[in-house]
Amino acid sequence: MKNIKLKIQYDGTNYCGWQKQKRHRTIQGEVERVLSKLCNQKIETNGTSRTDSGVHAYEQIVNFQAEFGIPVENIKKVANKLLPDDIVILSVEEMPLDFHARYSAVGKKYIYKILNTSERNVFLSNYYFHVHEEMDASKMMEAARFFEGTHDFKAFMSTSRNTVIENTIKTICRINVDEYDRLDNVNDTLNDQPAGWGKKIHIEITGNSFLYNMVRIISGTLVDVGTGKIRPEEIEQIILNKDRRKAGYTAPPGGLYLKEIYFNKEDLRR
Amino acid sequence: MKNIKLKIQYDGTNYCGWQKQKRHRTIQGEVERVLSKLCNQKIETNGTSRTDSGVHAYEQIVNFQAEFGIPVENIKKVANKLLPDDIVILSVEEMPLDFHARYSAVGKKYIYKILNTSERNVFLSNYYFHVHEEMDASKMMEAARFFEGTHDFKAFMSTSRNTVIENTIKTICRINVDEYDRLDNVNDTLNDQPAGWGKKIHIEITGNSFLYNMVRIISGTLVDVGTGKIRPEEIEQIILNKDRRKAGYTAPPGGLYLKEIYFNKEDLRR
Repeated sequence: MKNIKLKIQYDGTNYCGWQKQKRHRTIQGEVERVLSKLCNQKIETNGTSRTDSGVHAYEQIVNFQAEFGIPVENIKKVANKLLPDDIVILSVEEMPLDFHARYSAVGKKYIYKILNTSERNVFLSNYYFHVHEEMDASKMMEAARFFEGTHDFKAFMSTSRNTVIENTIKTICRINVDEYDRLDNVNDTLNDQPAGWGKKIHIEITGNSFLYNMVRIISGTLVDVGTGKIRPEEIEQIILNKDRRKAGYTAPPGGLYLKEIYFNKEDLRR
Repeated sequence: MKNIKLKIQYDGTNYCGWQKQKRHRTIQGEVERVLSKLCNQKIETNGTSRTDSGVHAYEQIVNFQAEFGIPVENIKKVANKLLPDDIVILSVEEMPLDFHARYSAVGKKYIYKILNTSERNVFLSNYYFHVHEEMDASKMMEAARFFEGTHDFKAFMSTSRNTVIENTIKTICRINVDEYDRLDNVNDTLNDQPAGWGKKIHIEITGNSFLYNMVRIISGTLVDVGTGKIRPEEIEQIILNKDRRKAGYTAPPGGLYLKEIYFNKEDLRR
């Protein structure tokens, strides 16, 4: 029996999220279909993060156990030929039997991307959240500081899911807010950059674990700070109030990317 | 009664093409839904090109006739608020009553985009056709010359549709093949450009009118020239044979963009 770890990357636009479902196309569904064919047996996978419908991943970690005949190093090449164009296996590694993509992970990094331009760009709508009011990234950086550390993030958990009550105390190690003035995009070579002001803002959030929709609610709240609807110093009280209605809205899924998964605390703190 | 011309741009990824359908989401369907709401009457539109499912448009031209209360210049702003993020109206213009988006047009320009890299890029799969065998763009340019001029393009018409026999003699004014070494993409700021060689190749085709799937079959044939499967000088005979099976395959829809529509012959020839 071998325990295999895969690092995979995907564009979530055309999928109903990571987790397999009977009636809908999901990334886990596609990955298991291909691996089962390849290994000639029914394969079940564990993924670290159950990304939502429309959410992307630069790096999702997946593990599965199987007996199989082909050499481990061949999995990547063969599976990538069978996978659809919007999912790719970046690396394959054999691990000790106790490695588990979800339970062995100690933290994750997400990036939330915002396109802040007066006119929308139709070709980026699945990859950036478009905000047409001009935003102040320095205010967002100020506000970001209040999220860092260990807090009860109840105000930043979706109320739409009837989940069992879970521990809402989480640790955010770091939030970076980066501004980019270059507006290169898929159509860069055609010089169709929109006229007038414009920038991209990336919010990078690293933490030990996250509540349902937590990254998207924090991002939505930071967008409200950027446009001036919420003052940076109000964040402290919003966290303390533990009231979902006082936080900002849930930013749309297309702007969210799972960026990195950490398996030891050293890497997470760095 | 006013006759209004719209210039619209869209990402075709999430639509079943331009033309409205009862059961499927289409671009024309979305545009007519929004215009009907805006003008408070049922609006029917004419679009110049009936782009297929997954095909994009930098510029699609649409016209519609209506009596309406709001000033013409307000249509753009209000309609853009109601349209989904992946469709945008670029301009609105009042035209003489005899203007028709389809019958007044004298020619069109399309661009077909190819990503020629050893590793695929999951975030560009809806916008570029990925070819992993290294391509020679200069051979494609050589081959392109044979398509220019007036020919019977029967070999480059889809045989999958039971259309009435149409005139298969068409004029291609120009084909340009451009190579770009910069691989900027939606994720440029993350430096995840794939390792090794890589380029983008754009095929630009301008003509008076096109047969069903003609641009995609010409593009697929030029890809076969680029990878060495077809020699440039074979194109002449492939055209003369009028046999669909001798031409290349139909390149996938995501790489295709409607770029420009011409309404006078001067502009088309230029």
